Amino acid sequence: MYDKHFLLDDKSAIDYIRYKSDFFGADEKLVCKEIGDGNINYVFKIIGQNKSVVLKQADVLLRSSKRPLDINRIYIESEVLKIQSSYSKSVPEIYFYDDIMHIIAMEDISSYKNMRLELLNGRIFPDFADQITDFLVDTLVPTTDLIMKSEEKKKDVQKFINIEMCDISEDLVFTEPYYDYKNRNIILEKNRDFVQKNIYDNERLHFKVAIMRNNFMNNAQALIHGDLHTGSIFINESGIKIIDPEFAFYGPMAYDIGNVIGNLYFAMYYNEIVSNNKQMYEYLQRSIYNIIVFIKKKMEKKLRSLIQLPIYNDEFIRNYVDRTISDSLRYAGTEMIRRVVGDSKVLEITSVKDIDKRVDLERSILNRALMLIC
Amino acid sequence: MYDKHFLLDDKSAIDYIRYKSDFFGADEKLVCKEIGDGNINYVFKIIGQNKSVVLKQADVLLRSSKRPLDINRIYIESEVLKIQSSYSKSVPEIYFYDDIMHIIAMEDISSYKNMRLELLNGRIFPDFADQITDFLVDTLVPTTDLIMKSEEKKKDVQKFINIEMCDISEDLVFTEPYYDYKNRNIILEKNRDFVQKNIYDNERLHFKVAIMRNNFMNNAQALIHGDLHTGSIFINESGIKIIDPEFAFYGPMAYDIGNVIGNLYFAMYYNEIVSNNKQMYEYLQRSIYNIIVFIKKKMEKKLRSLIQLPIYNDEFIRNYVDRTISDSLRYAGTEMIRRVVGDSKVLEITSVKDIDKRVDLERSILNRALMLIC
Repeated sequence: MYDKHFLLDDKSAIDYIRYKSDFFGADEKLVCKEIGDGNINYVFKIIGQNKSVVLKQADVLLRSSKRPLDINRIYIESEVLKIQSSYSKSVPEIYFYDDIMHIIAMEDISSYKNMRLELLNGRIFPDFADQITDFLVDTLVPTTDLIMKSEEKKKDVQKFINIEMCDISEDLVFTEPYYDYKNRNIILEKNRDFVQKNIYDNERLHFKVAIMRNNFMNNAQALIHGDLHTGSIFINESGIKIIDPEFAFYGPMAYDIGNVIGNLYFAMYYNEIVSNNKQMYEYLQRSIYNIIVFIKKKMEKKLRSLIQLPIYNDEFIRNYVDRTISDSLRYAGTEMIRRVVGDSKVLEITSVKDIDKRVDLERSILNRALMLIC
Repeated sequence: MYDKHFLLDDKSAIDYIRYKSDFFGADEKLVCKEIGDGNINYVFKIIGQNKSVVLKQADVLLRSSKRPLDINRIYIESEVLKIQSSYSKSVPEIYFYDDIMHIIAMEDISSYKNMRLELLNGRIFPDFADQITDFLVDTLVPTTDLIMKSEEKKKDVQKFINIEMCDISEDLVFTEPYYDYKNRNIILEKNRDFVQKNIYDNERLHFKVAIMRNNFMNNAQALIHGDLHTGSIFINESGIKIIDPEFAFYGPMAYDIGNVIGNLYFAMYYNEIVSNNKQMYEYLQRSIYNIIVFIKKKMEKKLRSLIQLPIYNDEFIRNYVDRTISDSLRYAGTEMIRRVVGDSKVLEITSVKDIDKRVDLERSILNRALMLIC
């Protein structure tokens, strides 16, 4: 059974988990619901008497557009989750991976909530900067060849070449927002001239973004998550869980760090301009500042404690971390531009119905992005 | 026949080429000689009445030390030669590749001579800077993802992961010369203190070399030759042929350019200090200068003519080429240090019998290397 891939539904998902595991008792009553809200995969949550499990399944077609996408992405995701969970508690536990049905059976993290929505609802998580920098430093640093054996790292670079997912990022993050060559950018009428002048016609910006694009595509520094926005971060009072690493590959650490920072800026400007929540604004501003301070401190410390080869001396470590931080701010900028100009918006922007406030919000985000990049 | 790998000898090499090709006439008298002088592979030259062919064969054991080395290296070499020959005439023509016998059958380039020996013999090749920069720019630029489709380039990065050969360079070029941790460095008694102070105890140098090591290991910029010293360059009045790309992988272009420059410095200082050949000295100095000027001019021009994506604008191209050149000078420096301090010396150094001249020569090379790197 299950020797050929087919897409589960709520009923067949229950049959599947009963057949594949003894996670639930034989007579236990189970309920299943498809809870996927992304545009890529299907997510079945199966609830028993006392516990629950999540099955994440990939199809040969994208969930949203039904266009074909390499199904190998879910193998990459399961392998990345295994590696990350060996370094950090802030990822869901993996029970098994089925390489025929393309299913990851994993911990149900429903007790954690989508961080983007939580921030939109004005929830403060005082330890977030500390928690996310732990996750970043703990999962990124050990996958560099400053720490890993060169041979093992090269095998992982080879294994995690992630052509189709990288192609999406190269296009959506580093190309379309600057040219609209696919005619998919979505720009408010009142911001057209602003975007034309400051983004489309800004040669200095293009030069700087081109360097970051080239770095994204060539710098096989560490096994990065690849899509670390606040919708991939689940959070509650006790901690965070990072999910959805299907964009993972060997790339620059700064891309992950920059994505986190960029997404906090969305929440920060939302609270300044739309909700006028001063406490949230200050909390988010402080969190961004703390992330930078903590990354510097923790990454230097971890590198110092793990590096074996003396040529990677103290001056090298300081320079390496400083460059990572300045690149992170630039990647925060590219994330901010693409979410305002491109077609993959964030809720902090699209949920704003007052058009003048949204114009203000978008310009604040773009101006900050230009400052970070140029 | 030939369905299992075995190492050829002069006789079986003749049988092999007769069986595998009709390159020679059925009754043609053939002579074969093993002419390999490297420490890795075997090279059989087979000569008929009017033409000749070279068979390069890899064994499971290294030719020199008899230690095992991944035999896949010769597949990489044949694939690299095919790619390079599609972009440049300055590589030998490949007739066929045998993936069982691990043999490349290729053009006999005996009419070209080993450039290191030619320079030692005081031969001037006025067009070398022009020819080598054509080869470098023509083979390196088209394998970057500024030009190649991102998807194809990633597949090539994956295919050309070259673990064992890169490991050798990482060790011999970027580790051992700075620590002697394997106790294999070979240093003249009279230069011990100089090396101790300026190389082993030079933290600033270690920092700079660490950045170049990290760049060598992480920057998958282009399909590079990986070992482009003057012994891999064959030359005559009509042109050059570049051989032996078994160290090839996706790495920084600057490493290839730097190797060429570093090896010209060996010849330059040899002519200044040992042979007192002023004309050669000036020719070599001018060649180094011209390589830098030509790389800048040709690489910018080629990038401008081939780049499709407008984000890679003029400022980006200038910056990209300038960084390539400054990195090239630093890699020239690491090549110069490793050939003086490490155990893989060059003939320009080892052939010098007058010990005081050799001391002078080594110090001049090391001082120049320190200037280039720091």
